[in-house]
Amino acid sequence: MAQRSLRDALLGAAATEFHENGYAATGVAAIATRAGAPKGSFYNHFPSKDALGVLIVEQYAGSRGTDILLDPASEPLDALRRHFDYLRSDLARDDFARGCLLGNFAAEVARSGTRVDTAVRDSFTAWLDALAVPVGRLAEHGALPAGGRPDEVARALGSAWEGAALLAKATGSAGPIDDFFAVTFPRILGLGRPDLPSHRLGG
Amino acid sequence: MAQRSLRDALLGAAATEFHENGYAATGVAAIATRAGAPKGSFYNHFPSKDALGVLIVEQYAGSRGTDILLDPASEPLDALRRHFDYLRSDLARDDFARGCLLGNFAAEVARSGTRVDTAVRDSFTAWLDALAVPVGRLAEHGALPAGGRPDEVARALGSAWEGAALLAKATGSAGPIDDFFAVTFPRILGLGRPDLPSHRLGG
Repeated sequence: MAQRSLRDALLGAAATEFHENGYAATGVAAIATRAGAPKGSFYNHFPSKDALGVLIVEQYAGSRGTDILLDPASEPLDALRRHFDYLRSDLARDDFARGCLLGNFAAEVARSGTRVDTAVRDSFTAWLDALAVPVGRLAEHGALPAGGRPDEVARALGSAWEGAALLAKATGSAGPIDDFFAVTFPRILGLGRPDLPSHRLGG
Repeated sequence: MAQRSLRDALLGAAATEFHENGYAATGVAAIATRAGAPKGSFYNHFPSKDALGVLIVEQYAGSRGTDILLDPASEPLDALRRHFDYLRSDLARDDFARGCLLGNFAAEVARSGTRVDTAVRDSFTAWLDALAVPVGRLAEHGALPAGGRPDEVARALGSAWEGAALLAKATGSAGPIDDFFAVTFPRILGLGRPDLPSHRLGG
C-alpha cells in the first residue's frame, strides 16, 4: 500500500475504533489491524496515539455542519434547526449507538492535560461560539425571551444536545433526541409551543 | 487488613479511580495499589472488573439524591430544584472536573453488552422515572406548558443536566451548569422567566 493511502487507512480505522470503543480502550494494534496495516507501520505515520487522537477530533469537529450556523444568508432559526437535524441524521446512522465522538472523548479525557483533552475543549468552545451566532441574530431581532445572553442560551442548547446524544446512547433509544426537538429546543428558544422537527414532517 | 475492610478499601479506591480516569483506563492493579492491597487479593473479593463496575454504578446511582424527587410531602418544583442543587453541589466538590460517573461510563461502555452497560442503562432509566414523578405532579396541577408528556419533559431535563455536567467537565467551566439553572431548567418547565438557582441567592 502506498504511504499516503496507508496513512488514510489508519486515520479511517482510528475514527471508527475510537468512536465505537472509546479512547482508552482503543490501542494502536487494533487500529493497525482494522486498517490492514502492520502494527509497526503506525509510528511511521503518527508520533503517538495522542497525536492521532487530536487529528480524529479535528476531523470529527469539522464534519458537524457548523458551516450551517455561520451562513449569513440563512434565517437564524432555520439555521439552528438544520444544524441539529444534521447532527441527528449523523447519530441516527448507527441508531444512536456510538453517540457524539467529542462527548465520548470529553467523558474520558477531559482535564487529563493531554493534547486530545485540549483538542476536545477547543472543538466544543468553537461549536458553542458558532451556535451563539444565529442565537445572537435572533436576539437582535427581539425573537428571544428576556433573560439569558446569547452565549448562555447557545451553551444551554449545545449542552442539552450533548446530553440527549449521551442519553440516547445510554438508554438505547432515540427518545432523548426526539425530546430535544419537541421540548428542549423550542422551549429554550421561547418558541412557545412544541415544535415538530422537520424530520417528523418529512422534511 | 480484615477481609471486610479490605473489600471496602477496594470499593472506595475503585470509585475514585473509575471516576477520575474512566472505566477502560482503570486497571485492577491501579485499584489495588490505591487501596493499599496486594493485586492478587482483588479476585478474592470481586470476580471481575465488570462485576466491580456494576457495584460502583449502583453505589453512585444510590447517592444522587433521588429520594428528594420521590418525597410525596415536598412541593414538586421545590423537589426538582433541590435535587439538581444536590447534584450541582456534588459536581462542584472537584470543580466539575470528574463529571457524572454514570454519564462518563455511558460514553465509554453503552451498547457494549456488558453488565456495566446494563447497570448504567438501568440507573439512568430509574433516575428519569424518578424525575417524572414531580414533573407529573406539576402537570396534574396544570403548572406545565402545554405539549410534552411528563416523561418527555423529565427526560429533557435529565438529558440537559447530563450534557451540562459533560460540557462543564470538557470546557473546565461551571458555565454550562449555571446555564442549566438560569436558562434550561426554568424554560423547560415553563417558569416564564430566568429563575435564579438557590445557591445564587445564598440558599
